[in-house]
Amino acid sequence: MNSSMIALNEIPGGITSPKGFTAAGVHCGIRRKKKDVALIASEPPAVVAGVFTTNKVQAAPILVNRAQVRRSDLCSAVVINSGNANACTGERGLNDAWAMVREVAGALGLPEEEVLVSSTGVIGQYLPIDNVLAGIRAAAAELSSDGGNDAALAIMTTDTYHKELAVQFELGGATITIGAMAKGSGMIAPNMATMLGFISTDAAISGELLTEMLRSGNNRSFNRISVDGDTSTNDMVLAMANGLAGNTPIVERNEDYYLFAGALDYVLVKLAKMIARDGEGATKLIEVLVKGAASEEQAELAARAVANSNLVKTAIHGEDANWGRIIAAVGYSGIDFDPEALAISLNELPVLLPNYVIVLDEEKAKETLAADTIVITVDLNQGGYQAKFWTCDLTKDYVHINASYRS
Amino acid sequence: MNSSMIALNEIPGGITSPKGFTAAGVHCGIRRKKKDVALIASEPPAVVAGVFTTNKVQAAPILVNRAQVRRSDLCSAVVINSGNANACTGERGLNDAWAMVREVAGALGLPEEEVLVSSTGVIGQYLPIDNVLAGIRAAAAELSSDGGNDAALAIMTTDTYHKELAVQFELGGATITIGAMAKGSGMIAPNMATMLGFISTDAAISGELLTEMLRSGNNRSFNRISVDGDTSTNDMVLAMANGLAGNTPIVERNEDYYLFAGALDYVLVKLAKMIARDGEGATKLIEVLVKGAASEEQAELAARAVANSNLVKTAIHGEDANWGRIIAAVGYSGIDFDPEALAISLNELPVLLPNYVIVLDEEKAKETLAADTIVITVDLNQGGYQAKFWTCDLTKDYVHINASYRS
Repeated sequence: MNSSMIALNEIPGGITSPKGFTAAGVHCGIRRKKKDVALIASEPPAVVAGVFTTNKVQAAPILVNRAQVRRSDLCSAVVINSGNANACTGERGLNDAWAMVREVAGALGLPEEEVLVSSTGVIGQYLPIDNVLAGIRAAAAELSSDGGNDAALAIMTTDTYHKELAVQFELGGATITIGAMAKGSGMIAPNMATMLGFISTDAAISGELLTEMLRSGNNRSFNRISVDGDTSTNDMVLAMANGLAGNTPIVERNEDYYLFAGALDYVLVKLAKMIARDGEGATKLIEVLVKGAASEEQAELAARAVANSNLVKTAIHGEDANWGRIIAAVGYSGIDFDPEALAISLNELPVLLPNYVIVLDEEKAKETLAADTIVITVDLNQGGYQAKFWTCDLTKDYVHINASYRS
Repeated sequence: MNSSMIALNEIPGGITSPKGFTAAGVHCGIRRKKKDVALIASEPPAVVAGVFTTNKVQAAPILVNRAQVRRSDLCSAVVINSGNANACTGERGLNDAWAMVREVAGALGLPEEEVLVSSTGVIGQYLPIDNVLAGIRAAAAELSSDGGNDAALAIMTTDTYHKELAVQFELGGATITIGAMAKGSGMIAPNMATMLGFISTDAAISGELLTEMLRSGNNRSFNRISVDGDTSTNDMVLAMANGLAGNTPIVERNEDYYLFAGALDYVLVKLAKMIARDGEGATKLIEVLVKGAASEEQAELAARAVANSNLVKTAIHGEDANWGRIIAAVGYSGIDFDPEALAISLNELPVLLPNYVIVLDEEKAKETLAADTIVITVDLNQGGYQAKFWTCDLTKDYVHINASYRS
């Protein structure tokens, strides 16, 4: 796959940029003042692909969506609330999630099975469901093609900025747009979606192929970010495609398939990096690139261990070129390698060469580590595979935010 | 095994409390002012058991010790330096570690193969070997049965207090003493020793059985603590037994074996808890008890996930009964369980009962979470096995310490 071959343009906008999508974001009273209910709609109905959390504890909306995508591969609307995860809420939580689905279907005149639901926030509290249902009615009345920004704002929890993105490219005789929005920013860890992500497109594509692309892209984007190593009970990524662009429908793995997959990957990776950069308390985005590995799996394991190391993350926060912590993390990652063959560089500044030849220039390291994006490159010098993983630095603000989240 | 049946007394003292052990701790100049070279000696030579780090990157002293314990099952002296890990230092580091061994052997007139070596501190810097060798000579001249405290001080890095312990009990017609010292307090994670620990005893016991007991005890003590999830390149635990107590030698798995193993377990667990409580920046000791599990392995996996969760650790720091983060961690631990059967209590205060019945009393929770030891009990209600795991809260001071460690 040569996923980088497509010429795409980023355009201003987000989830409502593709044709046929509308959205809204309103305040219903779960959160004190901020918007807390988002609604996305597609007319005509879109084929939908979803990936859901691997956590054994699955929030009510996750259970509802798993049932819904089995009932129908079409989706006309998604409702999301923030401020409350509707997780560990038992029977009542399930009833609340279904009530949200029915309220959307009723307000928009849709078949119930074409509505999906998502929640994010604190675990173990019941939704103020009357407020939420009123919020859904208000959002339904406000749906518009300019509503993407409001929707992106309404799904935030501890995110410090909203995350949205849109790209355009030519494919199959048509201009195709992909829009997206996502939220982070704690309880972020590899293993499935690790957050909420919503992708819209007006491309014509089969639901089966969209699912395949989303799974594959997800494995190299949202599954490769980590803020704190905690996998949430509510993670999900949805992709919706309504076909309005008028391209030759993508129904097999032809050139269009790979070009579209490349564009989707671009959007997924960019969103994932936005989430990592906006990790709770973060001041820097850290990209860990492990190359020269015997397999992509080994490269990923090593990159994941480095990205999840509190000691590496605090060292980068302190702008300290403490490469010993990096090699130690590779050492306990579980992969097989020769420590003496390993080389490390920080933003292209070599600090360790094979045979433990230390070439660290403290002055230059200090300078390069002052940047707000730090690329840690580990070369295992044992093969031709590589993997990237993204995280953020670990700061006192992370502790501050999480020592007082519920209160 | 009824390891709790032995009547043992804690006595003041540490590594030199058992008969025949001497120690010293001196300053040689690796650290600015603090003691940085410790020496422990046994006369007569002791049988020795060791467990070493599982990190693929192994520090020079670890490599030397692995070779030494293959050469001889006797140990007469152990030298330890703090402030420099002698890890990732290649050929020169190995030469330095061997030079430390030879210097001890020369100063004390011992066979080279009866000397072990240990280092802890920053990775990737060469030892100031001349200082270290001078320090060894000074320590050798100061060896005394009162030197245990100095030795315990000399192995500290970011530890805020020294860790030593001694216990006495009757066994096999004799009074037996076990002494111990250890250091933490960052780069602490399950999977092997996770720190430096030294155990001395005057019991008469075969090296083979001592090794067996140490491995087993280690798996339920040092391998069950975590400060930051980072497994060090230098971890090791050594146990030395010189037989001077005059007990009937323990050479088979008889009652004496299990009684001694129980006493050793007591010492190992107590040291491990001291290390967890003194984790970098910690203000609280957290004990995670997972019970009602289908196997001890499952209980341990779940307890480990909860103990390693930054979100749980920050919540406890904030004295916030955020049980949703606890159940979420069990959920991604990889074990199979029914979330609806699970119950959680904090210091014996129930907060969640099966079927997601929330009985959290915020007032009482606030009160109990103000304690400096927090026991998180998770009952899976699916079987008869349990496991404990210890960690500490995650604080701004952890970040502060580790964002500036090398400088």
